[in-house]
Amino acid sequence: MGKSRRGVRFQHRPANIDAKNSSSESSDASEPPSPTKAAKSDTVAGAKANAAEYKKKKETFITRTIWTFVMIAGFFVAIFSGHLYIIAIVTAIQIVSFKEVIAIANVPSRAKNLRFTKSLNWYFLATTMYFLYGESVIYYFKHILLVDRVLLPFATHHRFICFMLYMMGFVFFVGSLQKGHYKFQFTQFAWTHMALYLIVVQAHFIMNNIFEGLIWFFLPVALVITNDIFAYVCGITFGRTQLIKLSPKKTVEGFVGAWVCTIVLGYGIGNILMQYKYFTCPVNDLGSNIITGLECTPNPAFSPEAYQLPSWTHIDRTFNIAPMQFHILILATFASLIAPFGGFFASGLKRTFKVKDFGESIPGHGGITDRMDCQFLMGLFAYMYYHSFIAVQKSSVGDVMEMAITGLTVVEQIEVIKGLGKYLYNQGELSERVLNILNAELLARR
Amino acid sequence: MGKSRRGVRFQHRPANIDAKNSSSESSDASEPPSPTKAAKSDTVAGAKANAAEYKKKKETFITRTIWTFVMIAGFFVAIFSGHLYIIAIVTAIQIVSFKEVIAIANVPSRAKNLRFTKSLNWYFLATTMYFLYGESVIYYFKHILLVDRVLLPFATHHRFICFMLYMMGFVFFVGSLQKGHYKFQFTQFAWTHMALYLIVVQAHFIMNNIFEGLIWFFLPVALVITNDIFAYVCGITFGRTQLIKLSPKKTVEGFVGAWVCTIVLGYGIGNILMQYKYFTCPVNDLGSNIITGLECTPNPAFSPEAYQLPSWTHIDRTFNIAPMQFHILILATFASLIAPFGGFFASGLKRTFKVKDFGESIPGHGGITDRMDCQFLMGLFAYMYYHSFIAVQKSSVGDVMEMAITGLTVVEQIEVIKGLGKYLYNQGELSERVLNILNAELLARR
Repeated sequence: MGKSRRGVRFQHRPANIDAKNSSSESSDASEPPSPTKAAKSDTVAGAKANAAEYKKKKETFITRTIWTFVMIAGFFVAIFSGHLYIIAIVTAIQIVSFKEVIAIANVPSRAKNLRFTKSLNWYFLATTMYFLYGESVIYYFKHILLVDRVLLPFATHHRFICFMLYMMGFVFFVGSLQKGHYKFQFTQFAWTHMALYLIVVQAHFIMNNIFEGLIWFFLPVALVITNDIFAYVCGITFGRTQLIKLSPKKTVEGFVGAWVCTIVLGYGIGNILMQYKYFTCPVNDLGSNIITGLECTPNPAFSPEAYQLPSWTHIDRTFNIAPMQFHILILATFASLIAPFGGFFASGLKRTFKVKDFGESIPGHGGITDRMDCQFLMGLFAYMYYHSFIAVQKSSVGDVMEMAITGLTVVEQIEVIKGLGKYLYNQGELSERVLNILNAELLARR
Repeated sequence: MGKSRRGVRFQHRPANIDAKNSSSESSDASEPPSPTKAAKSDTVAGAKANAAEYKKKKETFITRTIWTFVMIAGFFVAIFSGHLYIIAIVTAIQIVSFKEVIAIANVPSRAKNLRFTKSLNWYFLATTMYFLYGESVIYYFKHILLVDRVLLPFATHHRFICFMLYMMGFVFFVGSLQKGHYKFQFTQFAWTHMALYLIVVQAHFIMNNIFEGLIWFFLPVALVITNDIFAYVCGITFGRTQLIKLSPKKTVEGFVGAWVCTIVLGYGIGNILMQYKYFTCPVNDLGSNIITGLECTPNPAFSPEAYQLPSWTHIDRTFNIAPMQFHILILATFASLIAPFGGFFASGLKRTFKVKDFGESIPGHGGITDRMDCQFLMGLFAYMYYHSFIAVQKSSVGDVMEMAITGLTVVEQIEVIKGLGKYLYNQGELSERVLNILNAELLARR
């Protein structure tokens, strides 16, 4: 959240080489005369220009640093204030980010002032958000929604309602197609969908991470920030070999060094977060904050298990390791090796549209999208990983009863009682006598 | 499936006016000299040209008609041969359609021969198809997969595996970005995703419709074809007022007339299909065909219920109407009023890329996509409508047992037995004696 320094990342170079480099990147035109040469030919003017440039750089650096701290402070205040505040912040970020991404595709055709294009973009955003928030709310607050008479139809027909809302937008779009503007309108349509898919859908998974427990939100965010910082530090210190053609300033040494550092630091951060139920518990109460805390039976991933080294090591020692400590390594590795490609992708997009930043939402930093590109990808990965390897199948007695009562016939319900009895008997949890009574009595019911 | 006549739909006009019209649509350039005038100035050459044109038109019409019948015959053979054949056909259609849609975006940049772009498109298609087919198979054949030791991890980690497969493609794409080709590569990337979303995702819902019962596949397809034909017939007969700027040949009269006809004919087709369990039953056996048939307890939507007219009509008669007969009207209305916008959307796309058809897969008809544009949208609607209003909550004894065994503790499992016993007692299905024995024995277990 706001600590990466994309502009000067990985490798330190003198300012004028930087400038030359970025100008040759941003366009395919022939190289402009090198500023180094120009400075030599007129020393006095050069010194003045350098001083002015230095002053400007310093100002930018100060603004940037101040805003970095403002963002970090805001982030921590939100984390401690409770889940609703974090959700509000993620929502705000996704809306601004959507706006920024929509805007850059709009640049080349700004002249063509089609009346409804902009409204339609926002309509699709609203529909998508309604759909995704609805999905989350239905999933996590089913027990509240299913009881409420007014909300019930919205819950049971949620997908259909959203589909029809989307269809209205679609029909309107097709109806508003105007001869001579097809290319612009279809590009806008495709681009809106791309932005929805890249930003809003991914942000949805981040929301769900928040609901599953703050650690699944905080740890991925922290890992990406850590990786960003250490890619910069390691790049300056050891950077030599270029990593990717797209971004000449990124080096293999920065990439690998940051990986090692992210694992070490991420391991530390993860171990601290694991100690607090406020971070590990899923959100069962939206009013909770750092003071009220949260209560739950923690996920088994957070409970230490006994591990022993293989026998050939001849070290007979038992280690108590929580599975989460292995999971942190994998999350840190993704944050270091794959998530940066989200950033490279964004860089490529910016080059394509010939813009330096996605916007000017954060003073000194550029647009919000510039700071978030890797976060979205990381959040999606955390979601997938959590649900595939960590989440325990949650079901309550109420869920099972609801399923049996609403979905089965009486005969089938009796089958369930018999089947569960048989299962418990096999597990040694019920005596044979009870099983026999169950079977006999249920066979002869009424 | 293949009876619409996009080229000459809705309104009959003399060939030369048609030609003039379409040339002014396909480009924004000034109008060419009218062929009518040219024909007048040189009558002999004009007559010859007309004869040649007529001959060519006739040939096209014959080819088209033959292939229409070939397709209809193939469609019915597949329907009667069984579900696997239909799924194979839908799969083939979606792959060819994907190929066609990818190809039209490739036209303007065909010169730039980037080595991996094409492979990457197919990789994304394969990944998406693996994901979506997997989802369907897991949903409908869970009871088989969960037992198999080899398939189990593929089922439980399906989404994570697909996410990682996708990420590999994504990283490869970013790594293969080449300076000077950004615009082309990003356009390809966006376009591939658009095609996946428009074709493959929608075809996935059509597959699921097949699994839910052949009627949910056959009826929507038949409604769209009926609507296409009657839009043409009504357009010729009454067509006067232009419907939409995008397609000058479509008229309000054709649109409304086709709506009425689709409702009437759709009602007939639906009522016939409803009589056969082969169409109404979900697929519980993939080896079934029209001869072996299918067996199930039909969805209540197919069972007639007694309806009475409101009292103010003073008609005291009871009507036996199956809810499905109302549902048909809604499906027919969507097929008539909304699904055609899928076709208009495709027309717009074709105009944007200045192509007449998406391809030449079907002789006389153009590309497969040209025939399928409305079908995809209709299939998605049928899926949404079915799952929101018609599907009954399906759960089996196995589902409930799985949920109780994997998700509950022993104490909770015993709670379920007690709770279900109590519920059955309240429903009058268990005697008090059995309930008491249950409670006493379970309390004192082992």
